[in-house]
Amino acid sequence: MLENSKYQTQISKILIANRGEIALRIMRSAREMGIATVAVFSEADRNALHVRYADEAIFIGPAPSNQSYLVGEKMIEACKKTGAEAIHPGYGFLSENASFAQMVADAGLILIGPSPQAMEIMGNKLSAKAAALKYNIPMVPGTEEAIKDVNEAKQTAIEVGFPILIKAAAGGGGKGMRIVERSEDFEEQMQLAVSEATSAFGDGSVFIERYVTSPRHIEIQVLGDAHGNIVHLFERECSVQRRHQKVVEEAPSSVLSPEIRAAMGKCAVDVARSVNYTGAGTVEFILDENLDFFFLEMNTRLQVEHPVTELITGVDLVKEQIKIAAGEKLSFSQEDLTINGHAVELRVYAEDPKNNFLPDIGTLRTYKTPKGNGVRIDDGFEQGMEIPIYYDPMIAKLITHGKDRDEAIQRMIRAIEEYEITGIETTLAFGSFVMKHEAFKTGKFDTHFVNKYFKPENLATQHEDEALIAAIIGANLFSLANKRVDNPSETKKQSSDWRRNRLKN
Amino acid sequence: MLENSKYQTQISKILIANRGEIALRIMRSAREMGIATVAVFSEADRNALHVRYADEAIFIGPAPSNQSYLVGEKMIEACKKTGAEAIHPGYGFLSENASFAQMVADAGLILIGPSPQAMEIMGNKLSAKAAALKYNIPMVPGTEEAIKDVNEAKQTAIEVGFPILIKAAAGGGGKGMRIVERSEDFEEQMQLAVSEATSAFGDGSVFIERYVTSPRHIEIQVLGDAHGNIVHLFERECSVQRRHQKVVEEAPSSVLSPEIRAAMGKCAVDVARSVNYTGAGTVEFILDENLDFFFLEMNTRLQVEHPVTELITGVDLVKEQIKIAAGEKLSFSQEDLTINGHAVELRVYAEDPKNNFLPDIGTLRTYKTPKGNGVRIDDGFEQGMEIPIYYDPMIAKLITHGKDRDEAIQRMIRAIEEYEITGIETTLAFGSFVMKHEAFKTGKFDTHFVNKYFKPENLATQHEDEALIAAIIGANLFSLANKRVDNPSETKKQSSDWRRNRLKN
Repeated sequence: MLENSKYQTQISKILIANRGEIALRIMRSAREMGIATVAVFSEADRNALHVRYADEAIFIGPAPSNQSYLVGEKMIEACKKTGAEAIHPGYGFLSENASFAQMVADAGLILIGPSPQAMEIMGNKLSAKAAALKYNIPMVPGTEEAIKDVNEAKQTAIEVGFPILIKAAAGGGGKGMRIVERSEDFEEQMQLAVSEATSAFGDGSVFIERYVTSPRHIEIQVLGDAHGNIVHLFERECSVQRRHQKVVEEAPSSVLSPEIRAAMGKCAVDVARSVNYTGAGTVEFILDENLDFFFLEMNTRLQVEHPVTELITGVDLVKEQIKIAAGEKLSFSQEDLTINGHAVELRVYAEDPKNNFLPDIGTLRTYKTPKGNGVRIDDGFEQGMEIPIYYDPMIAKLITHGKDRDEAIQRMIRAIEEYEITGIETTLAFGSFVMKHEAFKTGKFDTHFVNKYFKPENLATQHEDEALIAAIIGANLFSLANKRVDNPSETKKQSSDWRRNRLKN
Repeated sequence: MLENSKYQTQISKILIANRGEIALRIMRSAREMGIATVAVFSEADRNALHVRYADEAIFIGPAPSNQSYLVGEKMIEACKKTGAEAIHPGYGFLSENASFAQMVADAGLILIGPSPQAMEIMGNKLSAKAAALKYNIPMVPGTEEAIKDVNEAKQTAIEVGFPILIKAAAGGGGKGMRIVERSEDFEEQMQLAVSEATSAFGDGSVFIERYVTSPRHIEIQVLGDAHGNIVHLFERECSVQRRHQKVVEEAPSSVLSPEIRAAMGKCAVDVARSVNYTGAGTVEFILDENLDFFFLEMNTRLQVEHPVTELITGVDLVKEQIKIAAGEKLSFSQEDLTINGHAVELRVYAEDPKNNFLPDIGTLRTYKTPKGNGVRIDDGFEQGMEIPIYYDPMIAKLITHGKDRDEAIQRMIRAIEEYEITGIETTLAFGSFVMKHEAFKTGKFDTHFVNKYFKPENLATQHEDEALIAAIIGANLFSLANKRVDNPSETKKQSSDWRRNRLKN
């Protein structure tokens, strides 16, 4: 249908080796490019939206990921069956699996992502640091190789200065990570870190780094083509995390000066260049209280939070990934890119913030999404659907865009109020708590935001009086509306669903 | 809740004297500014979304507009009851009624709109032209006053050159408008135009203009504050019309050079200045085949199609209206405004394009809106609701934004495919027809687009074979999914709801 689009590439059909919102999001861009899509689905995803949205859908096995979404061979087989020339892995699952990338290449298919070599190097924090070293990238002071000699390591720790951090080379999400406050605890914590890393990643290599007491997590989006062009698309701030996992992200960061932004951008491009990076990738940095930044790691895939970058740059990152994989040159240079306004993302998870953010799986009894100016929803569910227990419990990403940070935040608060979800607990009200918190509003926060400021009572008591009044007045708007009709002079405050959401948030 | 927002104005509560999508749209901006909202509703709108969304809601009478939404006194009374200091009239209804504007001022309330004087002058095409004349605004050649002497008018018509257009001074939407091809028909057509204008507007004044054979309808958005600052926010192209009513709009126009854009913008600001315009207004021009433009009229309110301007400028027009009404100075100058990408809007009407776009009122049995990157929905309905017969049958505005015109169009096609409406006929498939039409894609079209290119068969036959196949395979995806599970090797093309939408469109 779109054969004449100037976006037409040599790729005519893509298999999306993923599920949920990211599968839908990728299919939307493919469809806008006139490219056919193939969904894959497990037993648990039979009725999932991504299956309905695709042009074709292939069943790949039982619900547990290691029997379906993590089985590379099934993806290759599905491509052969359907004639898909390329695979988009999304995020999670097979997206950073270098052996899978090699398997795809060996099968004569195109992986929409970087080379297996780039994945391999960046997949390990120590080899990533080694690759980046030649470009003079600032690193957190510490060891540059896996620790072999504990005494030598302790000496380094003393030089770096306590507190220090012991991290697993193969780690992520805070696993295998230990803070050591005093030198006398070093040996014991070291042992614990190694055994934790061994059991979590099958690789006990650890290294040490200075512990930054007030760190911000800032990452730079990069895009590289197969012709040696690499650009950055500015930063995303992802410091609001619970359980070491991002929950609120924004672009740009409220704290970077144009100079620091440019310097971080250059570093990110250099890190990508160190492995001849192709496709979309993210270079993560830690920013300390003096606004000094240090390279953390590179994620060799699309990030969950990529939409905030899309909204401030106008660049559709998935389309760029596809074009790069098809061998096209980037159609813009660094100078063409500018920041337009501000964007904020809230991950709407099926989890209970009042119960330590534990997953709260169930059925979406009510599910109505916000609309209007500056609101983007990327989701994978409809009213009546169940959130499967097998996968990440993210229901949706709610993203708002405004002309400045204040407008993006007010719009997020408004959108959260409009969002109606019943049947399960979600992070919506928590998102509202963050948006209205002084530390967030003023931009003065770090990765300790949740631990420092959030208590379950913040949600329960926040507007207790109003909530009580709302409950007394009653939930049913229609009866109120009728009441008003019977007695038009009555002007009582109403308590609609939306109104109640405002009170609760 | 938002007391600390920098958007806070002296207005703390606004009554929205309107219904449907525009009432919701206005409330969203008010809410983002921390301003409380009051809805008004007729008997037919008891359960409407705008009533649920507002902080308070006031019943104002029976369904017919002249007993509710058109009764100015009821709006004033509702303000007094609720303590609202300001009224936003939206579009239609009371929005361009100078007596209502005066009534609001007399009651000590703020009308979010221009002065009654500006409304009065611009409400009549002849007085509008007279006001604009001193600024040397290009006008379509013709008479500058209401025709008194038919022979004299005929002489002018001969000088201007046939075909000419006879137009009602108080007209709009094509009513009281007649094309005269030959001088011998002049008297008869003149009589018909006068009697049509008299019966439609209670004012038989007509005037004549050169008939532009291939006109494009291009309008400029302006904003003026109470301190004498007036800026324009570039143009909207609204040439795709059915029954002289806009149905597809875009910004910017595909045909304007930066020079013509700047010249039109300057003219629009001058027209606004001629009546000391305050608030948001739109100056309409006709553009002929030589790219010469002529002033048509000024609309002294928010336009239906204002979102395309919001998407390319990042300016929330409703917030600006409110701030201007509160006496604030514009926070930006002409130089601060730039065009960011391209936006297209489709008005989703409950009407049947196969039956001359006649309204097709009924219940929204299925109603699912598209999502994802670059898609904005402004609507006033939910699944299960009825479209009332008393009002304009617009269900929603679907607006897409892309980095360029091609991307905005492809995104619109994708969004139309995702939109699921059953129970009534809509303009969705028609919108897809427009987006895919060569004349639209290449930007080579005028206000005759629909008459020239659209035939009901375009929708019926467009993908007949595919639609037939889809119908045979069957509508129920779930059964197909089950089938695939039973026999995982099967890779049959599926026919989901979304897939069927693609075929139909």
